[in-house]
Amino acid sequence: MENPTDPTHNLTLNAGLARNILVNFIRDGIQSAGFQKGILGLSGGVDSALSAHLAAEALGAESLLCVIMPFRSSNPENRTDAELVAAGLGVRTEVVDISPMVDAHVKRVDADAKVRLGNIMARERMIVLYDISARDRGLVIGTGNKTETLLGYGTLFGDMACALNPLGDLYKTQVWQLAESVGVPRAIINKQPSADLWEGQQDEHELGFTYAEADRLLYCMVDERRSNEELVSMGFEERLIKEIQERVRKNQFKRRPSLVAKISNRTTNIDFRYPREWGV
Amino acid sequence: MENPTDPTHNLTLNAGLARNILVNFIRDGIQSAGFQKGILGLSGGVDSALSAHLAAEALGAESLLCVIMPFRSSNPENRTDAELVAAGLGVRTEVVDISPMVDAHVKRVDADAKVRLGNIMARERMIVLYDISARDRGLVIGTGNKTETLLGYGTLFGDMACALNPLGDLYKTQVWQLAESVGVPRAIINKQPSADLWEGQQDEHELGFTYAEADRLLYCMVDERRSNEELVSMGFEERLIKEIQERVRKNQFKRRPSLVAKISNRTTNIDFRYPREWGV
Repeated sequence: MENPTDPTHNLTLNAGLARNILVNFIRDGIQSAGFQKGILGLSGGVDSALSAHLAAEALGAESLLCVIMPFRSSNPENRTDAELVAAGLGVRTEVVDISPMVDAHVKRVDADAKVRLGNIMARERMIVLYDISARDRGLVIGTGNKTETLLGYGTLFGDMACALNPLGDLYKTQVWQLAESVGVPRAIINKQPSADLWEGQQDEHELGFTYAEADRLLYCMVDERRSNEELVSMGFEERLIKEIQERVRKNQFKRRPSLVAKISNRTTNIDFRYPREWGV
Repeated sequence: MENPTDPTHNLTLNAGLARNILVNFIRDGIQSAGFQKGILGLSGGVDSALSAHLAAEALGAESLLCVIMPFRSSNPENRTDAELVAAGLGVRTEVVDISPMVDAHVKRVDADAKVRLGNIMARERMIVLYDISARDRGLVIGTGNKTETLLGYGTLFGDMACALNPLGDLYKTQVWQLAESVGVPRAIINKQPSADLWEGQQDEHELGFTYAEADRLLYCMVDERRSNEELVSMGFEERLIKEIQERVRKNQFKRRPSLVAKISNRTTNIDFRYPREWGV
């Protein structure tokens, strides 16, 4: 990343500028929709910790509510870390145990259907966040990053559900950079990324590659629009190129609105698609 | 609607053509994504009944699963009606009572917060449908219509969540027309529209106007792009124009993807937005 002829040096973030853009994005996004408050699910991981830092700066600590939503099997350290972040920011927290909601589904779902259970957990958390946002008249701030979004490593209508998504255009390695720059606790930046949906789950193990590898490749593939030939000549492994390309393509449905059959003159998301803040 | 100088006569559907378009839309939508099966929540109302008819024709009865998801307080007639529709089509059904999942949220939610509870119910049904779609390798077919979509009369990440939405560009009065034409049972077409989220709920009562009124106005407003002056001179009440206009605008967030802060060259849903079926 130090070699200026390597295009991936562009993954190095101008942290001050990014912080500025994202803080303004959050403030404008909430206020232009007619709201003051933000609601955010705090997991103990770096993405939600960084999002909370930016949101507290944008809205003021008193206008942010961080919701901690452990499941029975969640690593208790994550809750401690989440509370550490909130305390550092002077932000209120609310703890909602999602075990009873998830349990109510479990009789239908095989206990070893880990991915299905993980999706149920992510979606139960969405229900809690959106219910609290209705109760408190706030907007849900998402915490997903660009690497996850491109790889489809997230649950549609679950952790991907939000009103605004400040980190959605930052790669995971850029999240780490910005987190360090805004002062997210070192312990949180350094820990192994994990969705913590089951015991011992680790993102990089589940994905089969590291975020550093994925980000370099995704950057060249998506942002720089390099061809497969170029990627190979830059030294990326063909197997990894194929695998990541397939993931990006296969998960496009998670990034695009539902398909609507066109019948009339003006159809939602086809030719009727004013901006979200049109109505305010 | 009989007067040919009244532009709202265009709400009269060419039912044969619409049926053809929608059946092909469902078949192509499922197959081009690499699937064969459809999963659909059947409520006993006309929208899901019509969607089931079209989906059974598109995919074959054996490739459609209708999921009936009553809550404790749901009107039992609706379940009977849903079973009647499925039996008429020769389609399999699965019944999942969502009461335990909803109950698990209730200690947090005031029992008279009816709208919040209604949203929780709609979202629990989404979780069940998406879980079944993962179990059976099928796609979730939505049942929302254009009137609901424009008015924002639906739950984001709840009943609005789907892979494809065949009726999303048909007004409610057009749903009734098409339902009659494809042979949805009369009893279902004739009953009072209700989301059945609480006892005695009726759409038209809750909205404060009838679907016939709303559809005429929405058609002139959205499809024909008539100005408020024109709408008034056509005989629409100013109060209703304002009210419906405000609803349409205020609910734009339910129809558009989340906001992502733009940082890089290529950002999801801004300048990285291939079609959903790009990857297949």
